[in-house]
Amino acid sequence: MAVTTSLRLPRLLHVARQRRFSVSHSVMAFRQERDTFGDIQVPADRYWGAQTQRSLQNFDIGGPAERLPAPLIKAFGVLKKAASIVNVSYGLDPKIGEAIQKAADEVISGKLIDHFPLVVFQTGSGTQSNMNANEVISNRAIELLGGELGSKKPVHPNDHVNMSQSSNDSFPTAMHVAAVTEIHSSLLPALVELRDALQSKVDEFKDIIKIGRTHLQDATPLTLGQEFSGYVQQIENGIHRVEAVIPRLSLLAQGGTAVGTGLNTKKGFDVKVAAEVSKITGLEFKTAPNKFEALASHDALVEAHGALNVLACSLMKIANDIRFLGSGPRCGFGELLLPENEPGSSIMPGKVNPTQCEAVTMVAAQVMGNHTAVTVAGSNGHFELNVFKPVIIKNVLQSIRLLSDASRSFTKNCVVGMQANEKRINFLLNQSLMLATILNSHLGYDNVARCAKKAHREGTTLKEAAVALGFLTPEEFDEKVRPELMLHPNEA
Amino acid sequence: MAVTTSLRLPRLLHVARQRRFSVSHSVMAFRQERDTFGDIQVPADRYWGAQTQRSLQNFDIGGPAERLPAPLIKAFGVLKKAASIVNVSYGLDPKIGEAIQKAADEVISGKLIDHFPLVVFQTGSGTQSNMNANEVISNRAIELLGGELGSKKPVHPNDHVNMSQSSNDSFPTAMHVAAVTEIHSSLLPALVELRDALQSKVDEFKDIIKIGRTHLQDATPLTLGQEFSGYVQQIENGIHRVEAVIPRLSLLAQGGTAVGTGLNTKKGFDVKVAAEVSKITGLEFKTAPNKFEALASHDALVEAHGALNVLACSLMKIANDIRFLGSGPRCGFGELLLPENEPGSSIMPGKVNPTQCEAVTMVAAQVMGNHTAVTVAGSNGHFELNVFKPVIIKNVLQSIRLLSDASRSFTKNCVVGMQANEKRINFLLNQSLMLATILNSHLGYDNVARCAKKAHREGTTLKEAAVALGFLTPEEFDEKVRPELMLHPNEA
Amino acid sequence: MAVTTSLRLPRLLHVARQRRFSVSHSVMAFRQERDTFGDIQVPADRYWGAQTQRSLQNFDIGGPAERLPAPLIKAFGVLKKAASIVNVSYGLDPKIGEAIQKAADEVISGKLIDHFPLVVFQTGSGTQSNMNANEVISNRAIELLGGELGSKKPVHPNDHVNMSQSSNDSFPTAMHVAAVTEIHSSLLPALVELRDALQSKVDEFKDIIKIGRTHLQDATPLTLGQEFSGYVQQIENGIHRVEAVIPRLSLLAQGGTAVGTGLNTKKGFDVKVAAEVSKITGLEFKTAPNKFEALASHDALVEAHGALNVLACSLMKIANDIRFLGSGPRCGFGELLLPENEPGSSIMPGKVNPTQCEAVTMVAAQVMGNHTAVTVAGSNGHFELNVFKPVIIKNVLQSIRLLSDASRSFTKNCVVGMQANEKRINFLLNQSLMLATILNSHLGYDNVARCAKKAHREGTTLKEAAVALGFLTPEEFDEKVRPELMLHPNEA
Amino acid sequence: MAVTTSLRLPRLLHVARQRRFSVSHSVMAFRQERDTFGDIQVPADRYWGAQTQRSLQNFDIGGPAERLPAPLIKAFGVLKKAASIVNVSYGLDPKIGEAIQKAADEVISGKLIDHFPLVVFQTGSGTQSNMNANEVISNRAIELLGGELGSKKPVHPNDHVNMSQSSNDSFPTAMHVAAVTEIHSSLLPALVELRDALQSKVDEFKDIIKIGRTHLQDATPLTLGQEFSGYVQQIENGIHRVEAVIPRLSLLAQGGTAVGTGLNTKKGFDVKVAAEVSKITGLEFKTAPNKFEALASHDALVEAHGALNVLACSLMKIANDIRFLGSGPRCGFGELLLPENEPGSSIMPGKVNPTQCEAVTMVAAQVMGNHTAVTVAGSNGHFELNVFKPVIIKNVLQSIRLLSDASRSFTKNCVVGMQANEKRINFLLNQSLMLATILNSHLGYDNVARCAKKAHREGTTLKEAAVALGFLTPEEFDEKVRPELMLHPNEA
Repeated sequence: MAVTTSLRLPRLLHVARQRRFSVSHSVMAFRQERDTFGDIQVPADRYWGAQTQRSLQNFDIGGPAERLPAPLIKAFGVLKKAASIVNVSYGLDPKIGEAIQKAADEVISGKLIDHFPLVVFQTGSGTQSNMNANEVISNRAIELLGGELGSKKPVHPNDHVNMSQSSNDSFPTAMHVAAVTEIHSSLLPALVELRDALQSKVDEFKDIIKIGRTHLQDATPLTLGQEFSGYVQQIENGIHRVEAVIPRLSLLAQGGTAVGTGLNTKKGFDVKVAAEVSKITGLEFKTAPNKFEALASHDALVEAHGALNVLACSLMKIANDIRFLGSGPRCGFGELLLPENEPGSSIMPGKVNPTQCEAVTMVAAQVMGNHTAVTVAGSNGHFELNVFKPVIIKNVLQSIRLLSDASRSFTKNCVVGMQANEKRINFLLNQSLMLATILNSHLGYDNVARCAKKAHREGTTLKEAAVALGFLTPEEFDEKVRPELMLHPNEA
Repeated sequence: MAVTTSLRLPRLLHVARQRRFSVSHSVMAFRQERDTFGDIQVPADRYWGAQTQRSLQNFDIGGPAERLPAPLIKAFGVLKKAASIVNVSYGLDPKIGEAIQKAADEVISGKLIDHFPLVVFQTGSGTQSNMNANEVISNRAIELLGGELGSKKPVHPNDHVNMSQSSNDSFPTAMHVAAVTEIHSSLLPALVELRDALQSKVDEFKDIIKIGRTHLQDATPLTLGQEFSGYVQQIENGIHRVEAVIPRLSLLAQGGTAVGTGLNTKKGFDVKVAAEVSKITGLEFKTAPNKFEALASHDALVEAHGALNVLACSLMKIANDIRFLGSGPRCGFGELLLPENEPGSSIMPGKVNPTQCEAVTMVAAQVMGNHTAVTVAGSNGHFELNVFKPVIIKNVLQSIRLLSDASRSFTKNCVVGMQANEKRINFLLNQSLMLATILNSHLGYDNVARCAKKAHREGTTLKEAAVALGFLTPEEFDEKVRPELMLHPNEA
Repeated sequence: MAVTTSLRLPRLLHVARQRRFSVSHSVMAFRQERDTFGDIQVPADRYWGAQTQRSLQNFDIGGPAERLPAPLIKAFGVLKKAASIVNVSYGLDPKIGEAIQKAADEVISGKLIDHFPLVVFQTGSGTQSNMNANEVISNRAIELLGGELGSKKPVHPNDHVNMSQSSNDSFPTAMHVAAVTEIHSSLLPALVELRDALQSKVDEFKDIIKIGRTHLQDATPLTLGQEFSGYVQQIENGIHRVEAVIPRLSLLAQGGTAVGTGLNTKKGFDVKVAAEVSKITGLEFKTAPNKFEALASHDALVEAHGALNVLACSLMKIANDIRFLGSGPRCGFGELLLPENEPGSSIMPGKVNPTQCEAVTMVAAQVMGNHTAVTVAGSNGHFELNVFKPVIIKNVLQSIRLLSDASRSFTKNCVVGMQANEKRINFLLNQSLMLATILNSHLGYDNVARCAKKAHREGTTLKEAAVALGFLTPEEFDEKVRPELMLHPNEA
Repeated sequence: MAVTTSLRLPRLLHVARQRRFSVSHSVMAFRQERDTFGDIQVPADRYWGAQTQRSLQNFDIGGPAERLPAPLIKAFGVLKKAASIVNVSYGLDPKIGEAIQKAADEVISGKLIDHFPLVVFQTGSGTQSNMNANEVISNRAIELLGGELGSKKPVHPNDHVNMSQSSNDSFPTAMHVAAVTEIHSSLLPALVELRDALQSKVDEFKDIIKIGRTHLQDATPLTLGQEFSGYVQQIENGIHRVEAVIPRLSLLAQGGTAVGTGLNTKKGFDVKVAAEVSKITGLEFKTAPNKFEALASHDALVEAHGALNVLACSLMKIANDIRFLGSGPRCGFGELLLPENEPGSSIMPGKVNPTQCEAVTMVAAQVMGNHTAVTVAGSNGHFELNVFKPVIIKNVLQSIRLLSDASRSFTKNCVVGMQANEKRINFLLNQSLMLATILNSHLGYDNVARCAKKAHREGTTLKEAAVALGFLTPEEFDEKVRPELMLHPNEA
C-alpha cells in the first residue's frame, strides 16, 4: 500500500470549485482594521474588524451555508446589551454604554445579520464570533457617536464592548440564551399547536371504531380518537420534557471569564448580567452556580438535545403511523384521507403522497444525527474549556428550528385537514375476525374458534360463518358483536 | 455484479461453530409441555414450558450472552406478584394467588434466574418472555401446591398467572419497573458515592493553586479544588437529570392489555397494580394516564437513556482530564498521582497506567452507542405497539449497570486514592508566563509584554526576566505576583 | 442546587445487589500466584495467574455478561501458537515451544474458555487479557510438561509465551484475527444463505404481478419476483461490502511491540507471524505496513463496522417490507403469508406475528448503536496507542454474531417458508386504478382520467367504470389492460 | 399530566420570528404558472414554475439555510443534459434537445443556482426538486428559443425535459452523480494534499527522536517522523477507503422510472444515459444492475458515508494528537510549535491556540452525527421507494464538503507551518526514565531497576542516578544509552 494515489482529474473540477461562495470584489472598497497581529483590509461597508476578517480567511470551511445561526447572533446582542448596562453600573461611561446598547439592539433586531459572516468551524471557543460581536457593536456604536469606523474610538471592542467578559464565558452564555429563547419563542408554541390540532382530531374521531393493529397484525378494536390520543400524549410529554431541561439550560456562564475563576471581572457581575438578560428577554435566567462546569462542559446542551431527540422519535412514530394509515388509495390501509397539497399523479385520483409526513420523518432523522454530533462534541472537553462550542450550538439551534418548522408545517398542511375514511374503517373492522373474541362467553371458546377458522378458510366475514354454522342468526350476531363493548376494561 | 460469491472455506470454521452455546444433552431428561401449537419436549429440571422452549429453538440469536438481563426478570416477579394480589381482590382463588405470589417471590430473589433462558432478539413485544414468566411461575406454584409440572393444574400460566394481563402491557410495565428499580438501587447510590469522593478531593485540594488550561494552552491559574468542583457539579447535575426522568419512567402500562383499551381487564386493575408494585418495591409507581402511548411508544425510556447519555459525556470529560493530569511520570502533565492497582512497567517506577479512566471512557463510548440503539428502536413503533421492546430495555439496563459499576470502580480504585503532585503543580505554575497579567497595573502593559517575551525567548521564568530587565527585585516580584489573587473576581 | 441528594432507600436494594454474579466459594481451593505487584490467591482449578486475578478484582464492571467474546479468546490462541512457532525458529527451546503450541491449541478449541474471565471494561489496551492468555497458556503448558502451576517454570508467561510481543501489538492482532475469522466462518456463509433463499423466492415469485408502492401509495405494477430481486441485490452488495474491508482488516499489528517501532522483537518476526496465522486459520493475513497506525488507530475496525452498519440498514428495510407485506390477515397488505412458528392468537386463525422480522429489526437497531460506540471509541486514540481496544472488538464481534445468527434464523424460520398470497395480490392489483395508465394510448389521457375518477368516486374497479362509460367492452378491457406489459421498458 | 401547558410568552417572540428569511416583495413582479393543481403566482424573474412554487409555500422548514446543496443542483444539470442527448437519439426534436442541453449547461455552470430555492425537507423522493430542474430548464430553454416563460412551449418540463424519466429514478441518479463528482473534485484532492503535507513532515522529522506515549504515559522512544508516518497511513488508507466505495456509488438508478421496472422508458435508455453522464463528467458511471434496489434503498450512500465516518475518526485522532503535542507553551507537552494565524493572548507570547485543530475536530463531530442521520434515513425505505432521499444526500454532500475544506484549511494553516520544538523534545527524552530498558543487557534487570527507582525518587535523570550508583561513568552512559538503537526491531 504505497503512499501514492493517482487521481483522475475529472472535467467537472473547475465547475465544482466554482460552487464555493465568492462575493464579487470588482469595485469593492476596503478600510484598514487592526489587531495585535497587525493591519488587515476589511470591506468598507461592513462593521466587522480585523479578527473577524482573519477568521474569514483562515477558516474557509463550508462557506455561507455553515454560518452560525441567527438566534446565536441575536443572543450576542442580548448579552452585550446586558453586560453594557451592568458595566455602566460599575462605572463605564454612560455615553459609551448607551451607544453600545443601541448597537446591540440593532443586533437583536436582526438588521445587522449580514455583518456576522463567520462559520461554525472556527476556533472551538467561539472567540472569533465573540470578537465579531465586539467589533460590529463597537463600530456601529462609533458610527452612532459620529466617530470613524476602525478607529476603536470612542468605543473599543475589547475595553468597552467586551468589558468584564471573556470569550470563554460569553460564548457559552450566548449559547444558553439562544437555546432557551428559541425553545420559548419557536419550539414550544409549535408543539402546542401540533398537540392542540391532534387533540381536535381526538375529539373529532372519538366515535369512530376501527381495527387495532399490533405486530402490524389485526388486533382488537379501538376508536380512532383513542389512537390519536396516544399521539397527543407523546407531544404533551415532549413539551414537559423540553420544559424539564430549562432549569439547567437557563444557567449562564457569564462571570467565569477565562477559566471559571472570574478573574478580571467584578463580584456580582455574574448575577447582575443574568438579571439583565432576563429583563431583556422576558425569560428567567440565573447565573450558573459553578462556572468551571459551565465553561468546561456542555452537559446542559447535551441534555437539552436529548429532549429534542425524544421529540424526533415521537414525530417519527406519529408521521409513520399517519402515512401508513393514509396509504392507498386502494391497496393500502386507507383509513385516513390526507389533504392534497400539490399534484400527485395526474391520472390517478386519490393518490395523495404523504409529503408532509416525509418531511417530518426526514427532520426526525436529521435531529437524531445532530444528537450524535452534540454528544460527541459534548464529551470532548478538556480541562477548563470545551472547544466544540460552535458545533454544539449550531446543531441544537438547527434541531430546534427544524422541529419547530416541521411541527408547524405538519399541523397546518396535514393534521388539520386530515379526514377519517369512515367507510373504509368500517369495512376493515367488519372484515376482521378479531371481533370473535367477544363471542367467547356466548358460544364458548371452541365454537368461536370454529367460526373464525371457517371464515378465514373461506374468506367470508365472521358473521357469515357464524350464521352458516347455525350458531346465531344475523340479528343475534349484530346484537352481540358490538365493538363498542371492546373499547375499555370491564366493570370490576 | 453477478449474484454469486465464492467463499473460501476457512479451516477455523468447525472451531467457530463450536463457540455456540450447547448444553450437553447426553443424559438429559425431558418432560412434555404443550401449548396451542402442540406438544414439545422441555428439560425436566426446568420450570419453563412450551412457549419458552419454542422461542429458544426459533431464536438462536446470540446465545446466552444475549439473554435478557436479570433486573427485567426480577421486575416480572414483582409484576406477577402484584397482579396476583390484585386478582385475588377481584376474585381469584386465594390459594392459587398465594402460590403464585410465593413463586413470584422466588423470581424476585433471583434464585430462578436459570429458568429464564430467552434472548433479547425474540418477538419484539417480549411476549415470549412474558410467557416464560407465566410458565415458570405457574410450574413452580404447581410444585408448591404438590401438582405435576406441565399439567397447568391447578395454576394455569395464562388463566391465572397472566390473568387480566397481556404481554403488550406486562412487558412494558416490567421494563419501567426494572429501569426505575435499577436507577434507585444501583445508579443513584453509585453516583452519590462518586460525587462525594470528588467533593472530598475538592476539599483536599482547595489550597493548591495550579495553572489553568484552555485550548490545552496555559491560561490563568485556579485551584485544583476549583477544577474538581466542576466535576462535582457535573455529577451532581447528572443525579438531578436522572431524577428528572423518573416522573415519566414510573408510569406503568399495565391495564392497557392488548391494544391500550384495557379490554379483558377490570376497571381499577391498572391503578391497583401500580399501587401493589409500589408497595413491593418501596418506590412510587403510578398507572400511565394514556395506555395507547404506553404501549406504542417508549419515549420515556429514550428520554431516560438521554440522561444516561449525558452521564457518559460527563464521565468521558472527567476521566479524560484525570488521565491527562496524571500523565507522565516525566513527560506529561504530571499534576496528579493516580493509585497503582496492578503492575505497570516492571522497570519503570511511576509509570502508572490510568486503567480505571480507560475503563470509564470505554463505558462512556458503549453508553453513547446504546443511546443510538435505543433511539432507533424507540422511533420505530407502529400503530398500537412498539415491537423493539426487548432491545430497548436491554440497552437501558446495560447502560445503567455499566455506569453504576464503572462509577463505583472509578471511585474506589482511582478517585479515593488520587493525590496531587504539589511539587510538579507548583513548578509548572511558576514556569508559566500567564502570571504576568497580574503585573499590568504595576508595570504597564508594554513592560509586562517585554518581560514575557524575554522569558519566552530565553526560556527563563517570568521572575528572572523581570528582574533581569530591572523592573522589579526578586522580593518585589514575589510580593506582587501572587497567584492567590487571581482566583476570583475583583471586589466590585 | 446544593451538592446533596437524599435518596430513598428502596426495599429492593438487597435484591438488586444479589443479581451480581457470585461463584459460590464455599469449598474453593486456592493457589498462590505472583507478579511484580506481589502475591495473590487464585482459584486452584483455574489456569489464570496473578494479573488476571487482579483485573477481576479491580474491574468489577458488568460481570460475566460483559466478558470478552469467545472469538477473541480463540484468536489469542491462534496468535500465541503462531508466535511460538516463529520464536522457535528464532531460538526458543522447541520443547517449550511445543508445549505452548499444544496449550494454545486448547485455547483455539474453546475448551479453556472458562479460564478467560475478564470483562471488556478493563485496561484499554487489553493488556490484562493478553496476560490472561499468557498465564493460561503458560500454566497449561507447565502442566503438560509435568511442572507446578504458578511456578512459571519451565514455561514463563512473559519470557516465553509473550516472547517478542507486547500487549500493545498482540491485542490488536487478536482483534483483527477474530474479526476476519468470524466474518469468514460466520457472517459470509449466513449472508450467502440468506441471499440464496431470497433468490429462490425471486424465481418462485417471478410471474406474480402485483401493485407497486411508492410513498406507500399505489403505483405501477411489478412482479413479486422483481420486488424480491431488490432484496437479493442488497444482500449481494452487502457481501461485497464486507469483502471490501478485508484487505485492511487482515493486516496485523504484531511486530510493532510497545509503541510501533518493534523494539525488543526481531526483524522479520512480524512477517513470519502473519504467515503462521494465515496457515493456522486458512485465511490470508499480512503484516501491517505501518505499525504506528496499527497500534494508535482502529480505523480498519471502524471501517469494517461501517459495512456491518450498511447490512443493518439493508436488513431493516427487507424485514420491514416483509412484515408489512405480511400484515393482516384481513386489515393489512396481506400479500405474503409468513410461516407460523409459535402460537399467535389462539382464537384468531391467520394472525401470524412477524416475530422473525422483529428479531431482525432489533438486531439492526443494536448494530446501528454498536456502530456509534465503535466510532466514538475509534476516534479517541492518543499518541502511540488507542486505549478503547476491548470495547471496539466487543462491539464488532457482537455485531458480526448478531447479524450472522439473525440472518440464519430469518432465512430458516421466515424466508424459506414464506408464501405469496396470490389471491390477495391479484385482488389488490385489479382493485388498483394504476393500471389506467396503459389505456392512455387507446383512449387518450382525458378519457382515461374520466374512468379513473369515476371508479375512485364510486368505489368500483377501473374495468367497471370503463365499461359503464362505454369506452370498452369487458373483453376489450381485459385484452388491453395487461399488467404484464407494464413490467419493463418499451422496445426502443 | 393534564393536556394543557401554559406558556410564558417571551418578549423576544416577535424578534425570533423575524429571523425567518423574507425576501422583500415590495415591488416584485409575478407571472402565472400552472400545473395540474391549477394556477399559481411565481416571481417574474425566476425560471421556476408552479410545482417549485408550491413546494416553497408548503415546506417552510428551515429556510434558505436548508436549501439542497449546489453540487446536487449541478448534478441535475448533468443528468438532464445527458437524458436530452439520449432522448434525441430516440427521436426527440433536436432543436428542443439542443435548447435543453444549453439550459442544462447553465445549471452545471452554477449560474442558475438562485433558481433552485427548495429545501431538504420536502417530499422524500425529491420530486419537487426534480420538477424544479425540469421547470427551470424548460423555461430557460423556452427563453433561448424566444418563447414565453410559463407557456411550456415549445419545451415542456415533463414531456421534454423529464422525458423517459421519473423523479424516482432521476433524484437518486443525481444523488450518486453529485456524490461521486464531489469526491473526485473536492475530497480526494484535499486528502492527497493533506497526506503529502504530512509526508513532508515525516521526512522533515525523521531524525528527531522523542519519547513515545502509551496510555498517555511515557514509553519507549520513536522518531517524530515515525509518529507522523502513522498519520500519513491513516489518510492514505482513508483515500483507499473512499475509492473503495466508488464502484457501488457510480451505479445509476436512471432507467428504473417510477418503481424500478422501467415502464415508460426505452430499452437501452439506462445504459446510454450512464454513458453520457460519464462523458460529461469525465468520470466513470454505469447503470445499476438492479433498479429496484437503486430506488428503494440507499445502501451505497450509507456505505459511502461510512468511509467519511472513518475519515472523521482519523482526523479526530490526528488533530487531537497535534494539539496535545503543541500544548503549552510552558505547562503542556510542547513538542510541536504550531503556526500562529490570529491573535492569541496579547501579553502571552507562545500561547498559540490550536484553532485549526479545533475546527477539524468539530468537523469530525459533525460528520459522525451526519453518519447517524444517514444511517437512520437509509434504513427507513419502504417497498419500491426510500423517501429520505433529500436528507441523505444533503448529509453526504455536507460531510464531503466539510472534510474537504477542513483538510485543506488544516494543511495550509497548520500542517505546513508546523515545527518541531527540538529542544523540548530532547529535554523530555532525556528526562524520561524509559531509556533504562536498553541497559538491561549491560547491568542486568535488577541494577537497572535500582537506577530507575533512585532517579524517580530523587527527581534526577537516569544518567545522574546511574553514575551516582557507580554503575557507569557519564561517558559510558552516553555511549550505551543511545535512543537511536531503540527505534526498530533487533537484527534477527
